[in-house]
Order: sequence, then structure tokens, then C-alpha cells
Amino acid sequence: MTEEYWKGINKIEYIGHQDKKSQLGFQYYNPDEVIGGKKMRDWLRFSVAYWHTFDQRLVDNFGDGTAQRPYDKYTDPMDLALAKVDAAFEFYDKLGVDFFCFHDRDLAPEGNTLRETNANLDKVVDKIVEYQKTTGMKVLWNTSNMFSNPRFVNGAATSPSAEVYTYAAAQIKHSLEIGKRVGSENYVFWGGREGYESLWNTDMKREQDHIAKFFHMVKDYANEIGFDAQFLLEPKPKEPTTHQYDFDAATTIAFMKEYDLDKDFKLNLEGNHANLAGHTYQHEIRVARIADMLGSLDANQGDKLIGWDIDEFPSNLYETIAAMTEVVENGSIGPRGGLNFDSKPRRSSFEADDLFYGHIVGMDSFAAGLRVAVAMKEDGFLDDLVKERYSSFDSGIGAEIDNGTADMAALEKQVLDMPQSELITSTHSDHLEQIKDTINHYMIETLSK
Amino acid sequence: MTEEYWKGINKIEYIGHQDKKSQLGFQYYNPDEVIGGKKMRDWLRFSVAYWHTFDQRLVDNFGDGTAQRPYDKYTDPMDLALAKVDAAFEFYDKLGVDFFCFHDRDLAPEGNTLRETNANLDKVVDKIVEYQKTTGMKVLWNTSNMFSNPRFVNGAATSPSAEVYTYAAAQIKHSLEIGKRVGSENYVFWGGREGYESLWNTDMKREQDHIAKFFHMVKDYANEIGFDAQFLLEPKPKEPTTHQYDFDAATTIAFMKEYDLDKDFKLNLEGNHANLAGHTYQHEIRVARIADMLGSLDANQGDKLIGWDIDEFPSNLYETIAAMTEVVENGSIGPRGGLNFDSKPRRSSFEADDLFYGHIVGMDSFAAGLRVAVAMKEDGFLDDLVKERYSSFDSGIGAEIDNGTADMAALEKQVLDMPQSELITSTHSDHLEQIKDTINHYMIETLSK
Amino acid sequence: MTEEYWKGINKIEYIGHQDKKSQLGFQYYNPDEVIGGKKMRDWLRFSVAYWHTFDQRLVDNFGDGTAQRPYDKYTDPMDLALAKVDAAFEFYDKLGVDFFCFHDRDLAPEGNTLRETNANLDKVVDKIVEYQKTTGMKVLWNTSNMFSNPRFVNGAATSPSAEVYTYAAAQIKHSLEIGKRVGSENYVFWGGREGYESLWNTDMKREQDHIAKFFHMVKDYANEIGFDAQFLLEPKPKEPTTHQYDFDAATTIAFMKEYDLDKDFKLNLEGNHANLAGHTYQHEIRVARIADMLGSLDANQGDKLIGWDIDEFPSNLYETIAAMTEVVENGSIGPRGGLNFDSKPRRSSFEADDLFYGHIVGMDSFAAGLRVAVAMKEDGFLDDLVKERYSSFDSGIGAEIDNGTADMAALEKQVLDMPQSELITSTHSDHLEQIKDTINHYMIETLSK
Amino acid sequence: MTEEYWKGINKIEYIGHQDKKSQLGFQYYNPDEVIGGKKMRDWLRFSVAYWHTFDQRLVDNFGDGTAQRPYDKYTDPMDLALAKVDAAFEFYDKLGVDFFCFHDRDLAPEGNTLRETNANLDKVVDKIVEYQKTTGMKVLWNTSNMFSNPRFVNGAATSPSAEVYTYAAAQIKHSLEIGKRVGSENYVFWGGREGYESLWNTDMKREQDHIAKFFHMVKDYANEIGFDAQFLLEPKPKEPTTHQYDFDAATTIAFMKEYDLDKDFKLNLEGNHANLAGHTYQHEIRVARIADMLGSLDANQGDKLIGWDIDEFPSNLYETIAAMTEVVENGSIGPRGGLNFDSKPRRSSFEADDLFYGHIVGMDSFAAGLRVAVAMKEDGFLDDLVKERYSSFDSGIGAEIDNGTADMAALEKQVLDMPQSELITSTHSDHLEQIKDTINHYMIETLSK
Ligand SMILES: [Co+2]
Ligand SMILES: [Co+2]
Ligand SMILES: [Co+2]
Ligand SMILES: [Co+2]
Ligand SMILES: [Co+2]
Ligand SMILES: [Co+2]
Ligand SMILES: [Co+2]
Ligand SMILES: [Co+2]
Repeated sequence: MTEEYWKGINKIEYIGHQDKKSQLGFQYYNPDEVIGGKKMRDWLRFSVAYWHTFDQRLVDNFGDGTAQRPYDKYTDPMDLALAKVDAAFEFYDKLGVDFFCFHDRDLAPEGNTLRETNANLDKVVDKIVEYQKTTGMKVLWNTSNMFSNPRFVNGAATSPSAEVYTYAAAQIKHSLEIGKRVGSENYVFWGGREGYESLWNTDMKREQDHIAKFFHMVKDYANEIGFDAQFLLEPKPKEPTTHQYDFDAATTIAFMKEYDLDKDFKLNLEGNHANLAGHTYQHEIRVARIADMLGSLDANQGDKLIGWDIDEFPSNLYETIAAMTEVVENGSIGPRGGLNFDSKPRRSSFEADDLFYGHIVGMDSFAAGLRVAVAMKEDGFLDDLVKERYSSFDSGIGAEIDNGTADMAALEKQVLDMPQSELITSTHSDHLEQIKDTINHYMIETLSK
Repeated sequence: MTEEYWKGINKIEYIGHQDKKSQLGFQYYNPDEVIGGKKMRDWLRFSVAYWHTFDQRLVDNFGDGTAQRPYDKYTDPMDLALAKVDAAFEFYDKLGVDFFCFHDRDLAPEGNTLRETNANLDKVVDKIVEYQKTTGMKVLWNTSNMFSNPRFVNGAATSPSAEVYTYAAAQIKHSLEIGKRVGSENYVFWGGREGYESLWNTDMKREQDHIAKFFHMVKDYANEIGFDAQFLLEPKPKEPTTHQYDFDAATTIAFMKEYDLDKDFKLNLEGNHANLAGHTYQHEIRVARIADMLGSLDANQGDKLIGWDIDEFPSNLYETIAAMTEVVENGSIGPRGGLNFDSKPRRSSFEADDLFYGHIVGMDSFAAGLRVAVAMKEDGFLDDLVKERYSSFDSGIGAEIDNGTADMAALEKQVLDMPQSELITSTHSDHLEQIKDTINHYMIETLSK
Repeated sequence: MTEEYWKGINKIEYIGHQDKKSQLGFQYYNPDEVIGGKKMRDWLRFSVAYWHTFDQRLVDNFGDGTAQRPYDKYTDPMDLALAKVDAAFEFYDKLGVDFFCFHDRDLAPEGNTLRETNANLDKVVDKIVEYQKTTGMKVLWNTSNMFSNPRFVNGAATSPSAEVYTYAAAQIKHSLEIGKRVGSENYVFWGGREGYESLWNTDMKREQDHIAKFFHMVKDYANEIGFDAQFLLEPKPKEPTTHQYDFDAATTIAFMKEYDLDKDFKLNLEGNHANLAGHTYQHEIRVARIADMLGSLDANQGDKLIGWDIDEFPSNLYETIAAMTEVVENGSIGPRGGLNFDSKPRRSSFEADDLFYGHIVGMDSFAAGLRVAVAMKEDGFLDDLVKERYSSFDSGIGAEIDNGTADMAALEKQVLDMPQSELITSTHSDHLEQIKDTINHYMIETLSK
Repeated sequence: MTEEYWKGINKIEYIGHQDKKSQLGFQYYNPDEVIGGKKMRDWLRFSVAYWHTFDQRLVDNFGDGTAQRPYDKYTDPMDLALAKVDAAFEFYDKLGVDFFCFHDRDLAPEGNTLRETNANLDKVVDKIVEYQKTTGMKVLWNTSNMFSNPRFVNGAATSPSAEVYTYAAAQIKHSLEIGKRVGSENYVFWGGREGYESLWNTDMKREQDHIAKFFHMVKDYANEIGFDAQFLLEPKPKEPTTHQYDFDAATTIAFMKEYDLDKDFKLNLEGNHANLAGHTYQHEIRVARIADMLGSLDANQGDKLIGWDIDEFPSNLYETIAAMTEVVENGSIGPRGGLNFDSKPRRSSFEADDLFYGHIVGMDSFAAGLRVAVAMKEDGFLDDLVKERYSSFDSGIGAEIDNGTADMAALEKQVLDMPQSELITSTHSDHLEQIKDTINHYMIETLSK
């Protein structure tokens, strides 16, 4: 029995509406409640991100870390790494989540060679695997950090240095092996530096050829060792690079199709990244959904007036309602997807307890979003709207267009002598103001129950 | 008795929670309900904007107007202008607002000379004044359109042409006289083209001197004729100009102070303009509030991912809660302020009814914001937070700082030998994630009543 | 012989460096000078845009048009349309361009039915065809305006109304016929309203299916009538819509591939649109170039601090150098591409002469860009940089990666015991500051000759 | 005699136009050449920023530092601090600058108490003062880092903690003493965290009162010890905070006036900060210039498509021409201002030599900007433009407006019966396209000499 790390925190339970002041309890997330045909926990599949929750010191570009964590007393890197595993599993248990996610470098420090680095990592993974046996905790996905070390200054699989590329391949090889050991359901690539600082010295085509080859090697090696994860790419438009190749969902899907990766890879989408690309989170999920490319979600929110990634814990119910509407429509987040909190407290909410408050507001906000999305779905509110709006394509000339039997000459015949006023009559107001009002009503009425 | 323009619309009443689907009724706005010590109608003082509601054809830069309005049959400009007055007063009555706002050019067409233009205008104002007598409708503010006519291509009071400046002065003279006749409580200047296209050919100092003189002339003339309105400047950072002088609240206050206008002018603040300047609406209201410069509010919302002014009807409750929190703190919107809907339906919601739906979602959203803000105020939720956060300035060395008795040597003495760890202990987490969660609870719980 | 419209303007000739003050002459554009193996006119293939140059009244969302044009005296729409043809061909001749571009609606007014509209159009096209015979003027591309008329409020080929879709098909049918008559080398689609205002009521998948079918019908009909143009899509991220489907080059390529349109369509790229999508113009051209999708260019520049499309005449030499560097690398702008000035004077430069000044600064800026790009190419400046930077992939393990013979196990073997310091040594500074300095030197030295 | 740190670098000399490829020499900066009535070195007063040039490890939020510096062998913090002084003075000498700038924390590590911290600092300052005696190097300004240490998580002079405020006052006290010792000509405050993360828990008024008191204490103490520096505030809109109080030039001037600081403080303006606030650098300098508030300049450039501060070395000649045009108009950068390179190499240009390349492109770009600005001034190019544009205010009714003798009634009389066409005739095209073309010509022709 290890020491208790998160003192003063009991297991977070569903408490329903008790008090306006936030407490250490869920008001909307009731994990085993069945809603829309599934338990809430199965719809949402919440996951804690190791890097933000246990490693993040709340550093920024202008200041040192402010985080106060219960394992700060450990100074030896391996002692610290092992203590964090204890703290992490206590955290998962108290919070009541079923999944977690991690980079290789989150778990253990690097050594002087990759062999030493792998050995450090294996020691920590051994401990994690032990915990998994007794707790049933699952890994939503693991990934490899190929952007922090100075060797990756110009990218990993798009580095102009063949040595760095080689190192990245070797690093990921071990990460796949780790993924197999911990039973990761997915495996994610966020190409933090897979892009360019300047076009003047960048051979964009050659770099994209390289990374596509890299992904094929990854898939081949996963097959070879029997690591059956769903592979995912996570788009972000920029930061740290001036331009990142996986700019957004559409760009990333295009890349996968170009390089024959679309059968084996899907998307992991993040709200803040969507905003930085000029999109809403809902837009990115919609693009992925209709392309059958939705893999998993990184749950966080940005500030659309801020031009960098802030990874704030989700609290805006409009955002979670919109995201969960797409998920409900899709039937699930993805074949094995979940909601991973790629979220961190503010630099000013630096105490250990804030990690719980942050996850509670995030989980409750997505649970609220799910409740509202299910209520709208069950009433057919949006479905009816959309069906009616496009109904002119369900019969007559519209159906001929839809089924491909119309041609230009036939279409011309229909309208060549139609007066303009008749055409205008065929357009209808979409009453968008009323729709937004109704969504407000759904939000308030559904959540006040 | 004139014809009925808004057919099929009855008087919009408070209906409370009846149905999630939006109806022609208010669910949160109950005008005579007393809340926070005042009737809701007196807190909110809703106003309809003549230009967006009655004149706006839903044109954009890429297409002609789509609006369908019940007075479209009128083709003679003066007939149309007079019919719109009837339609407007029927609209006010059915919607249940107490105020409206207008530009001079909204009401009547221009003639070939200013004298003819003024005559057109006077005829319409005569009719408005008649209606005011029987209805009690009040003018929250009037203003003058000095940006649409090609003569104002480079601004009005900042035009490099003395003739244009002169014309602008003459135009505003009549507008002030009109304001007096209709009893405007405020008079607003939005300096649409009072800025620059390019710095290369702009004498910014001379232009600002000119417009300051202009405002002084305005105030003098208003005094002369006994027009006792509160004068207001409305900031916007750009569009149509590359840069508008009244960039945001802080810039505009600076201008007023520089030119000794701050005693006679206050601010009219708009949500979408705030966003275009890189600010939240709450920020702009806060800046005005603490400078005692809050005059009135233009109620609308922007889309922070869109770089131009969309003037959407407000529906986001987070925005209205934040705005009304500042208003509640201020005691009122301003000495004679109100909430003017500088909002228009989307180009795709072009039917006459959409004007009602738009105002309903806007009025209900601000009423909801008021309810939540009052609930938080009455509980002391935010006040307690803030009081506690700054409490170290309420006594000891903090109080000496606050009352100005401390000096550098005294302060140095306090900390010169204090260990770093002790200092860190004096900082406290602000638990921002918990605060955001609590605001969600306030929103849901307050509005579900 | 028609009247002279552009009085006081003589034929614009190459004058070289004569005076710093801009004159009615080219200082860098010498059309028949051979540079980089081709005449400048053949590299650049400048085209005048009918809409901005002859139709644009310099209206904006806040004001009426300021433009003063020599054919303003015509009030009958057809008289005006025919007079503009005379003015246009005089303009082309005086400016010395070989190409022009137009929408169907630029040329002639709409009638009450499509049949009447087509008849109006045909009459103007007859006159254009006559002029082409005597002048040799070519059409770089034509297109169809399917966004201005209120019927297109929700798009044309993505409209939820089958009637509107049908009308759009019929309209484009005639536009293709016109294209054949005037011998258009390309045919462009800018999907101004092919996107969404709100996701809540949008069936994105069905809309994209519809427009893809539309493009296939277009191609089929063009084949049927023997109209052998290169088809092009022009991306823009938003405005007037909240989100336009052809967001940027990558998104549009993805759409073409998804719907099997990539063999028959390429891209027409615009600088200001690139910026609105968060990209540089160079980035968009690069993306198209390496995908072999570069079709043609819309020459203009944006203001990256402004969130809407300003379509300014190009004057920034850094932008033109970057664009022309991609073009030189590509060998040409595209199979039949050119530089179409999708550019307009500012609302404050409203006189007729400003149309010449605008085109002169635009043509000279692109000619300057070409000169600098060719100079860098001939010196191998950037080619050498890039070759050196990626040279580790030209032999050894790098070459094995490139040719696909390496696998993960092989790569791991290379680095498993390599010390970190050795790896760091394999990364090299890219001396970006020096590169930027050198580009400045190329700009000044090349252009001062 | 210390070891040589910057090996392989000789003194950077003016070489004029020798080669397009950048070399270790200046092509435009000829320090003792007299231009516009002053030596170039006296117009430009270049300064090296200690933090970016000697301390910056090229860390970013996603990765460790890549910088390779010649003093990396030192591991003891004080040894390193002292070695950096040697390296710095060798750098200044080789680069040929006359000024440098520093934060207190750049020079020496913190101790456990402020007393110990001050002692560390004094030891390094002793060494600097020795160097100054022999080299004549001057300090353009010094400043205090009150944002990196976790104690400053919520600001320093706006911290809600009185203890932190007290510490900040004590820290700055010593910094002022240091400033006096090294003879700083200015003293700068960049309020990195003087702003808010969230408005919900922020008492903006109280925080601004506190920091104003702080600045008064600073001024009083400077007077007391006879430290005769020009005090400067450096605006930035956000980052690291959500909103920084010194948002931009106009906001900061307003703050100074409100709190009676405008007599003793001026502005230090940075190009990248201007862009983040939605402004051009030229705009910010213009605003300061016409308010007589221009103090000094931080020379760098941003990327307007990137939403965070990148502090790139200046290379864009349009930016430097615009900035220097304002400076030439002002007569100097400010009473004691200079151009401080608040600029750093990219993370990918990490070698020691890149520090020289970066400063060379920056110095040459500003020298080029000066040359072009002086040429335009001497020709009266812009002055004539502006004089002509506003000439209608130089006589007649315009002059009466300017001198304040006109009133509304008089102005009305002038225009009441003037036909619209006459008014339109009084507006003139500003030929902006021609102006931009001419600026290109000035750039090329002036720099090719
Ligand atoms: Co993420
Ligand atoms: Co993120
Ligand atoms: Co407004
Ligand atoms: Co607005
Ligand atoms: Co275009
Ligand atoms: Co455009
Ligand atoms: Co700076
Ligand atoms: Co900066």
C-alpha cells in the first residue's frame, strides 16, 4: 500500500443538483445511467492525459512552472517517475475514469542512448501493467514525443536529417511495443514539428513522402508484432511550427488518401486546435464524421481571441452540446474513441486540488452536452429541420439530381422560362434565430431535470 | 387606423417555460417582474434599431438583399418612408419594447440639397412625434449617418475636405434638432469612416483635432437649443476603414480626455465591435464602468472566428451573463442607457417573422443574463471571491500601499531577507476551473426556475 | 470608331528606371524581354478582371459606390453593357495585356427569365467576339456568378432547394457555351456561397455530393459541346459564408480526389484568400504545385491585419517574389494559367486613372517578382540550399529510407546505442536570418539593373 | 585578456554592395555616414538585448532549448554569469554597436533571499561597469524581470498579494540603483503579467490603482537617488496574460494620463507587439509621435499570420521604411531612444554565428529603412502629398474651422443649398495605388546606390 497522494479528496461521485457552488461531485455525469441507449460512461469514455495532469509544471514562455504536486519531493528522475505512477492510479480511481493516455517521454526520463531510454521506460511500464491488472484501467491511446528533444528541431519523420528520421523510427518502434503491452486501443500521432518554419528552405514534397513512408512502416511493424490499435493523426495548424502539415481535418484526410493511409488511420480531433485553424470544434468533427474518419477526441477548449494553444478544461456548454450532437449522430466517438482531457489548469490554479476541479468541470460539461444532444435527437428536433430543408431533393427533378439521372439539357428545360419571382419563392427562410433560441431552451430544460 | 403589417403576429407576452421549441413568447423576459430591486424593463430598457430592423435589405458585399418586408410594395421613397413608420410602431407595440433608435438617413431619403433632405426628414419626424404622443414610445438615441454617402469617402469630421466637414456639421445640426423634437435620451456617434485607409497620406493629428472641435461644436449647439441628451461615442476598431480612431473603449476614453470631452461624452459599447478589437464584450464594459464612462449598450454578438462585423442577434448566454454582471455591478447600464439591438437576421432568415424571432432570442437572452447576474450578486458569489483575493491589501503593509503611506525603502525592509519559499506561500490558487463550473450551475439553476 | 473613354491615357510602355515618382509606364515589365528562357508576357500572361475593373462601383457594406467611370452617362442597362465593351477593349489596348476574364453577370443585365437573360448576354458576347477578331485579345477564363442573386442565398450547387440547383445548372450551361464562343482557355468556379451559415441545419455530406455531381455534369457538357477549357476551382475559406467548402488548396484537392474530379480540375489561387485561410500565398501555390494542381493565379494582396477580402492591387515585392519563385520552379503558372488581377482600387482612389495606376503597380510588382525569382534560380541560390539540407537522404541509410528498403528493425539498429550528443551533431543550423538577408540583396540588386 | 568566444568572426564592417549572398558585413549600415543631417549611428542607436542574445536557449512551449553558445561549458551559475559578460562585450565590439539593454535577472541568478539575489547581481554589475570604462559601451535601458518567477504568477505591481507587490517594489529598488550605476539612459517596464487571466475574479480598478502608485514610487525613488533616466512603458496586448493592461500605445497613454504619469513616462514600442494588438508598427509609432510620447523602439518583426510573439530579427524593408519614416518625421527616435533588438534567432538557427547574421540583417534593414525615409523626406514626397490633401483647411471656411471661429450655424449656411454634385466634386482621389508604386521605386532606387 503506497502513501496517499491526493489528500482530502474522496472518490468523486454523482451528486446531482445539490448546490450552485461547485463541489467535489458530478452534477451531470452519472456513469452508469443509460441515456440514448448506452451508459454515459460508454458514450464518453473519459481519459486522463498523463502529460498535462501529472507532468505539466504550468510553465509558459515567460515564466517557470507554478504547479504544486504531491510528488514534488522526489528529486531523482526515476524515483519521481515511479511515484507518479502511484499518484496517477490513485487519481484515476478517485476521479472515476476508465482510461488514460500517455507519451513515452511522460513516463520516464531519457538516458544517454535509446537503449538506456527504453530501459527506463520499461521499468515504469512494468509498474503500470501491474496496476492495470488490479484496477482494470485501460489505455485509450499512447503516443511518442518526437518534438521536445532538440534533435527534433526540424521535425522527426519530416526532419531533413536522415539520422534524426532513423532515430524517430527506432523510438516509435519501442513505443509500439509499449502500446501492445499496455493494450492501447488507439495510437496517436500529433506531428508537433512535422511542418515548416520557412518555405524557402523546405522541400515539402520530399518531407511528406518521408512521413508517409514512416506511417506505413509503423503500420507494418504493428501488424508484425500483433499490436491491434486504431492509428490516429491529430491535426493542428501551427505552433510550434509556422505551418504544420496536418493543418486540419480536411487537410489530414487529403494527406491520408494521397498516400494510401486512409484505411488504417483515422483522426483524433482537439477543440483548441480546431479554433487555431479557423474552425469550430463541431466543424472538424463533422468533416471527420461524414468522411468516416472520426477516431477519437481531445477534450479541451480554446479562447478564440487568443492565438495560441491554451488547452483549457472544457466548460462551455455550447461547445460540448455541439460536439456531442455530432457524436450522437455518429453513434459513438469512433470505433474505439474516447474523450481524452488534453487540458491543463491555468498557471494561476496551480494547486493539486485544481486537477480535480478541472476534470470535474470537463466531465460534467461533456456529460451535460451528451444529455442535451440526446434530448434533441430523441425529439427529432434537428433531424426534422434538416429533412424538411432538403426535401425538394426527395422527389421529382430533385430526386433525379440525387440519383444522377438528370443532365444539363433536362435541367435547363425546367427553368428556362420560369419567372424570377417563382424561383425566389422556392427559397425559404431557415429561421436561424429561432433555432438558436430553441437550443438555449433544450440546454436549460434538459439540464434542470 | 393603418393596415396591419406584421400579420399573424400577436403581442409577444411572457409565457415562462412552456416548451423547448421557441415560440412567439418570452420565457425569461417578464417586463414588470422586480428583480435585484428594479423591474426587468427598467434594468434592460430594450430598444429596436430602425436601420437593421426596418431598412436592412440583408445585402452583403457579394449579393443583393434577400429581405422580404411587408412594405416592399411601396416604390416611391417618401411613401415607403412613411409606411415604415406605421410598420415600426406596430412592431414596437407587438414586441413590447419601450425604446427605439435611428440615424437621420434611416427615416427619409436624401434630396438634392441639404435643405431638401431636411424637409424630407421633417415630414417623417412629424409622423413619429404623433405616434409618440399616443404610444409613449421613447427614443433611446438618435444619430446621423455620415458614412454611406460617397461624399464621406474619407470621413466626415475627419475628412481632408473642408467642404465635406462643413456639410457634416450642417447635417448634424439638423440631427440634433430632430433629437430634441423626439426627446432622445442620448445621442450617439459611430465614426464609421473617421479613421484611415493608409497612414502614408494621413495627418492623424490634424484629423483628430478636427473631430474634437466638431464634438465641441455639437455640444455647444445642443446646449444652445436646449437638447439635453447624453452624448456617446461608439468604438469600433476597423471596417469599413483600415483603422478607426475610436478603436476600443480605452482608446476612445483617451481621446476624450485629451480633448476635454470626457465630461460631456460617454461610451456606447457593442459586443461585435469588442471582439473585432480583440476584446470580450465584458472587457469593454468593465473598462468603461471603472472609468465611469458607461453610457449605453449595443446588443449583438459576433463570431470570433469571423473577421468582420456580423451583428448577430444575441443568443449566447455566457455573453449576456457577463455583460449583465457588469451592468448589475454598475447599478444600471448608464445614466440613461439601454440595450439597443444593433442586430440583424442572417441573410438566410429573410422573412418578416424572423425579425420577431431575432428580437425574442435577443431579449430573452439578456433577460436570462440579468437573472443569473442578479442571482450571483445576491449570493455574493463573485463579490466574496474578489474580496478574499485582494484581502492582503486591507490591512498591514497592504493597507499602507493602498493608502499611499508606503515607500520603497519601507517595502524593501519587509522582504529583503524573506526566503523565497515564504513568498511563494503568499500566492494562492484562484481555482478558476471551479469558478467556471459554478457559473454553469448558476446558469442552469437560475433559469430552470 | 467609338469615342475615346480613357482620355489622357496613352499606351503604357516599358520605360525602365526614369523617375521615382510613378508614371504611366512600366519600370520592370518589358513584355517581349526574354528572361529565364521565355518572354515576360508568356511567363506572366496578365489578365484584366471585368468585374473589378469595369463593373465595380467601390461600394462597401457601409456605403454607396464612389467610382467615377467614363461610361457613367449610360442609364439603360443594355446601352451601358455595350458601351463597357468598347471601354474594356480600349483599356486592354492601352494597358498592353493579352487576356481578360469575366463572369456571365458582369457583361449583361438579367432578364425576367433565363431565356431573356441569355439573350442579353449573347448580344454582348457578339460584340466581344467581333473585338477579339480584330485585336487578338484572349479570354484567360470565364465563370458564372451564382452568388449575387437572392435565389442563391444558400448557395447554387449546394443549395437545399432543388429548383435553385436546377437553375444554376441551366445558367452554367449557357456560360459554358459562351466560354466556347470566346475561346476561354480555362473555366473557373469560385463557390462564393457553396458552404454554410450554420452547421445546425446543414447536411454537409449531401451538399458536397450535389456539387460534385454538378461538376461532373459540367465536364460532361463541356465535352459534349467541344469546349476544351481547363476547369479550375478557386478556394476561399469564408466570406460571404461562415464556412466555404473550398476552404484552401489542400481542402479543395481533397474534395476533388474524393469525388474523382482531380483529373479534370485544377486550382485557381488568390493571395487574399490564402491569407484569410491562415496561409501565405506562397504556401497555397506550393501545395498546388507539388500536387500538380496549379492551374492559374488571381493576383491581388490582402492586409493580414484585416479579416475580410480587400482585393488590393499587388504592390508588396516580397509577396510577388515568393509567388513567382513557385511559378519559376513549376515552369509556368499552369498548363494554361495566367495572372488575373482580381484586384480593385481603394474606395478612396475612385477616379478612372486609378484603374491604370492599379494595374501598373500590379504588373510591375509581378514583373519585378519574376526578375528576382529568375535571378535566384539562375544562381541556384535556393536549389543549392535545399539540396544541401536534405543531402543525408541521398546516400546510405537515408537513401534506403527514400527508396523504401529500410524497415524499423534496420533503422533501430543504426541508433540504438548512439549517444545523444552524436545525434545532435547531425542537426544543422539553417541560418534563416542569413537567407532573409540574401533575399533582400537579390531584390535590390536585381531590380536596380 | 579573456578567451575569444565568438571565434571566426571578425569586426563587422560596412562593405557596401559586394555580393548578393549575405556576408559578415553591412551593405547599408555605414555608422559614420551623415544622412538627413546626422550620422547613421546617431539616428539608429542600435542596442543588443542581453536576454535574447546571451540568455535565450531557444526553448519553446513544446521543446527544450537548441541554442549552442560558446559559454555553454560553464555549469556554475555565477561562473556562467561572469563569462557571459566577457562574451557580451566581445560581441558588442565585433558587431559595432554602442548600446545594450538588460533585465536584472538576465545578468545573475537569484539567491534564496532578495539580499542574496542583489549580491549576485552586484558582482556582475561590477564587471560590467569595468568594461564600460574601457569600451565606452552605454546602456540604452535596463529593466526588471517581474514575470518569470512563480511568485509573479498573477503579476507584480498588480498582484492580488500585498507580499508580492512589496517584493516587486524591493526588487525594482535595486534595479533602479543598478540603472544609476551603469548610466542607463532609459528605464523600461514591460508589464508581462500586469493584466488578467479572467475578469471574474479581477478587480481591474484596484489593480490599476496599485500599479500607478508603484510607478509614482519608482519615479520618487529615482529622483531621490539621482537616477536621471527617461521612464518608458512597453505595450503588449496579451501573452502570457489573457489581457495585458498596457494593450497598445493609445491604451497606455490613457493610463498614464489618468494617473498623472504622462510627464515622466513615455513609450517603448515593439513591432511584434503592435501586430498582436491588431496594429501596424507604423501605427503605434505614429500614435506615440503625435502625442509626444515616443520614447524608444524595440526592433523586431512578427508574422501576422501567427498569433503569438515570435520576436524575429527585422528583415522586411517595408516595415523598416515605415518605422523610420515616423522617426525621421519625429527628428529622432525619442529624447534618448534607440533601436533595441528584442529579437532572437529561430529555434532552427541555433548556432553562435546566427546571432551575428540576425543582428546584421536587422541593422542593415533599419539602415536601409532610414536611407529610404530620408530620401522621401528630402524630396518632400510624402509631405507634399499630405499638404495638398488637407489644403482646403488652410484658407476660407476651412481655416475658420481650424482656428475655431466657425460655428454650426455658419457652417450650415455654406452648404444648405449646395447641390450634391458640387459636394462630390470637392472630394478627390488619393491615388493610393500610385503612392505604393512610388514607395517601391524609392526603395529600389535609393538602396541600389
Ligand atoms: Co491534443
Ligand atoms: Co492543444
Ligand atoms: Co453598434
Ligand atoms: Co456592429
Ligand atoms: Co479571386
Ligand atoms: Co478576393
Ligand atoms: Co519588447
Ligand atoms: Co515581443
